[in-house]
Amino acid sequence: MSELTHIDASGAASMVDVSEKAVTSRVAVAEGRVVMLPGTVALIRAGDAKKGDVLGVARVAGIMAAKKTHELIPLCHPLMVSKVAVELVLDDALPGVRVTGTVKVSGQTGVEMEALTAVSVACLTIYDMVKAADRGMRIEGVRLLEKDGGKSGTWRADAPPGQG
Amino acid sequence: MSELTHIDASGAASMVDVSEKAVTSRVAVAEGRVVMLPGTVALIRAGDAKKGDVLGVARVAGIMAAKKTHELIPLCHPLMVSKVAVELVLDDALPGVRVTGTVKVSGQTGVEMEALTAVSVACLTIYDMVKAADRGMRIEGVRLLEKDGGKSGTWRADAPPGQG
Amino acid sequence: MSELTHIDASGAASMVDVSEKAVTSRVAVAEGRVVMLPGTVALIRAGDAKKGDVLGVARVAGIMAAKKTHELIPLCHPLMVSKVAVELVLDDALPGVRVTGTVKVSGQTGVEMEALTAVSVACLTIYDMVKAADRGMRIEGVRLLEKDGGKSGTWRADAPPGQG
Amino acid sequence: MSELTHIDASGAASMVDVSEKAVTSRVAVAEGRVVMLPGTVALIRAGDAKKGDVLGVARVAGIMAAKKTHELIPLCHPLMVSKVAVELVLDDALPGVRVTGTVKVSGQTGVEMEALTAVSVACLTIYDMVKAADRGMRIEGVRLLEKDGGKSGTWRADAPPGQG
Amino acid sequence: MSELTHIDASGAASMVDVSEKAVTSRVAVAEGRVVMLPGTVALIRAGDAKKGDVLGVARVAGIMAAKKTHELIPLCHPLMVSKVAVELVLDDALPGVRVTGTVKVSGQTGVEMEALTAVSVACLTIYDMVKAADRGMRIEGVRLLEKDGGKSGTWRADAPPGQG
Amino acid sequence: MSELTHIDASGAASMVDVSEKAVTSRVAVAEGRVVMLPGTVALIRAGDAKKGDVLGVARVAGIMAAKKTHELIPLCHPLMVSKVAVELVLDDALPGVRVTGTVKVSGQTGVEMEALTAVSVACLTIYDMVKAADRGMRIEGVRLLEKDGGKSGTWRADAPPGQG
Repeated sequence: MSELTHIDASGAASMVDVSEKAVTSRVAVAEGRVVMLPGTVALIRAGDAKKGDVLGVARVAGIMAAKKTHELIPLCHPLMVSKVAVELVLDDALPGVRVTGTVKVSGQTGVEMEALTAVSVACLTIYDMVKAADRGMRIEGVRLLEKDGGKSGTWRADAPPGQG
Repeated sequence: MSELTHIDASGAASMVDVSEKAVTSRVAVAEGRVVMLPGTVALIRAGDAKKGDVLGVARVAGIMAAKKTHELIPLCHPLMVSKVAVELVLDDALPGVRVTGTVKVSGQTGVEMEALTAVSVACLTIYDMVKAADRGMRIEGVRLLEKDGGKSGTWRADAPPGQG
Repeated sequence: MSELTHIDASGAASMVDVSEKAVTSRVAVAEGRVVMLPGTVALIRAGDAKKGDVLGVARVAGIMAAKKTHELIPLCHPLMVSKVAVELVLDDALPGVRVTGTVKVSGQTGVEMEALTAVSVACLTIYDMVKAADRGMRIEGVRLLEKDGGKSGTWRADAPPGQG
Repeated sequence: MSELTHIDASGAASMVDVSEKAVTSRVAVAEGRVVMLPGTVALIRAGDAKKGDVLGVARVAGIMAAKKTHELIPLCHPLMVSKVAVELVLDDALPGVRVTGTVKVSGQTGVEMEALTAVSVACLTIYDMVKAADRGMRIEGVRLLEKDGGKSGTWRADAPPGQG
Repeated sequence: MSELTHIDASGAASMVDVSEKAVTSRVAVAEGRVVMLPGTVALIRAGDAKKGDVLGVARVAGIMAAKKTHELIPLCHPLMVSKVAVELVLDDALPGVRVTGTVKVSGQTGVEMEALTAVSVACLTIYDMVKAADRGMRIEGVRLLEKDGGKSGTWRADAPPGQG
Repeated sequence: MSELTHIDASGAASMVDVSEKAVTSRVAVAEGRVVMLPGTVALIRAGDAKKGDVLGVARVAGIMAAKKTHELIPLCHPLMVSKVAVELVLDDALPGVRVTGTVKVSGQTGVEMEALTAVSVACLTIYDMVKAADRGMRIEGVRLLEKDGGKSGTWRADAPPGQG
């Protein structure tokens, strides 16, 4: 197990020095899900049929949040992300919404946090938009699915954990 | 089940009008957890023994994120929160970190989203600070525990769901 | 004609003191339009039929921008807006998109700038989303339509100026 | 006419992938104008004679807004702009203020939106600073004048449209 | 000497609860100075004669920074400041620039940090704008001059300390 | 003495064009100090013994502020900093806290402002966290210690000025 790279020799927090790292093409994919009542899924679907708002607004919120990652996570480096996509799928079996975020960059650090932040904020936005109907919703299983690029190369998550 | 208050008569997203709502004292408490390898908990604890950094930085990140909620969640109203607290507890049984966020305001809308955002960003910060050691961590069970104040009065979550 | 209230006795810029103003209910409505090629209107409409994206994303951008007004306009006071709505209508006769923004607040200053900022950023977002098809689009006629509340009471714009 | 590049195959909004685009030197120039009463021009000029505040503050606001473009326009990529200039000229014939914004970058996407955002926010700031004297002002003709660099090369606007 | 109010019973940082505090009118005045070479003062004065830029830009930067205080200082409450003014005076005897910031609010917490932040960022902006001429400048004596309002009432600084 | 590079030929403020500058590795180190009562140092030390909060929170605030420099200082270019570190040392002889900030980047402009901003905001955060105990604290001696990289090469400050 590696050391905590955000903590320097004396134990104090610091933004790690990436200036010697190579600029490479990097991708990260993260996922999460909002678990809700069956009726809440129906409510979103009905709204979606009209104007697509709940999922549409959550998608925009997730994309914009990816760009704010370094403002939210204290030791994250600012990055010029070259692509952000957020996919949202209604799932009656969950029941709820499955969210996937994909971020690309050509840079010196990875974009795992950007992908995870996009997913988290998209999930929070879904909560916000339907909370009047269902306050007991839960955000579950926010995790990294895969990353590519950089010195550590490719990493892929194990089989998905049980559903919430 | 109530209507989706963020969607107007024509189905388009809009920030709902709260101008006629009473200014009352409101509180919200939310929770979440970061599930990790047993060794990662030990790593944080060891770091914590020295300078308290992982949990300390995550606490600051969560507090600051609560103040940014309306910038992240498109249809949230800006609020002048009067208190934000984030509690982080290492739990070997999880294994991982349990996060609780409490937010208070005197205003026209509730602070559920502020509490949930504080918890989510604190969890993401923990992920960021130990991801070099454990990329498979998951953020689970982000949910509202209770809210007080406003027209809908007090709401409390049911018994906690099973652990991730 | 009144003095420039943002410029103090010595001529230097300053955020004017509103601390003695009454807290009243205030509303402002602003409008603007994006003038484009007929084919660009058709393009947005076709996309709108599928997922409503151009107008949907512009609506979210306008709402979020209203909340950022005091960060963009140097001498604007921060405000807790209680409602923001942005309406977008495709108009083949223009041809283009007509945008209307409505903002409410209970506070010591008006929300004209918030309504105008919502409209401007919604127009810019439309430009961004279809610029690959039509770089010659123009944003025209961004103006205040009406304001209510505060010491100066109600103000309404004269008949609309000619179309761009 | 090209496709809407911000909308993916399924019709959902996404920040387009520019990771394969070449890093080239890019420039964009945009313009706009604030049309006002003749007396308002005189008012600004008189203030300008003393401390230059209205145009000076609007210039700073426009420059700072260019740096915030990707926070305002949901699908814009973050960019490290290498130059931003905003020129403001009082024009008695308009009557009003003519605003021009120039932005440069070495990057994978153009800076049209940065130039247009600088102009729009400079115009909004002028409105804010003299609105006490003239609420009927209008922002007209916000448009791209020219762009250089990138795969699409140079683009220049046609002859200017009629004045507001 | 009072306790550290930002640290709770267990020693963890938290944004203190001000929800029971009275809403009162509050004012804070802070000062600071940028000490520079005599020639740098002359340089700013000459530029100031032309367009007033160094001091004018620093004034705008200070005013805008006051509004961002709660984003910069982790445990500061968000506030709706009702007035911000920044005064900058060239002083050949220093030699340098003297900066004073005044902030007002009607709220539950004081505005000392807003006044100090306005002064600090105005000083940093002066440094930025003339650093090409004088890298050895120093920001000295940033301190609170007085505060009024709230439970602790009026506080005034002792006689000014010696010059840097 | 060089010209003011932020002021163009006509005297108006502008973000200078760095597009022709070479991308080189750049470092800047800045320092500052918060001068306080002896008892305030003891108070921070006692708190530090428990949870390290005052210095820990100030460190995080300084690191996050470095990333916001271009949002605070109007004519600063946005930069992708590759390292930020903030060191805080209690000094009974001062008495107070000594703060040092180090920032690295690979880019076209230097990071002096980022280092100075990190130091200033860390100092302001210290003030905020202990102001209830000591309102008379002063921030002194904020200055650049050294810079490396870029066309102007290495610059180092003269011997430190007298203590505040």
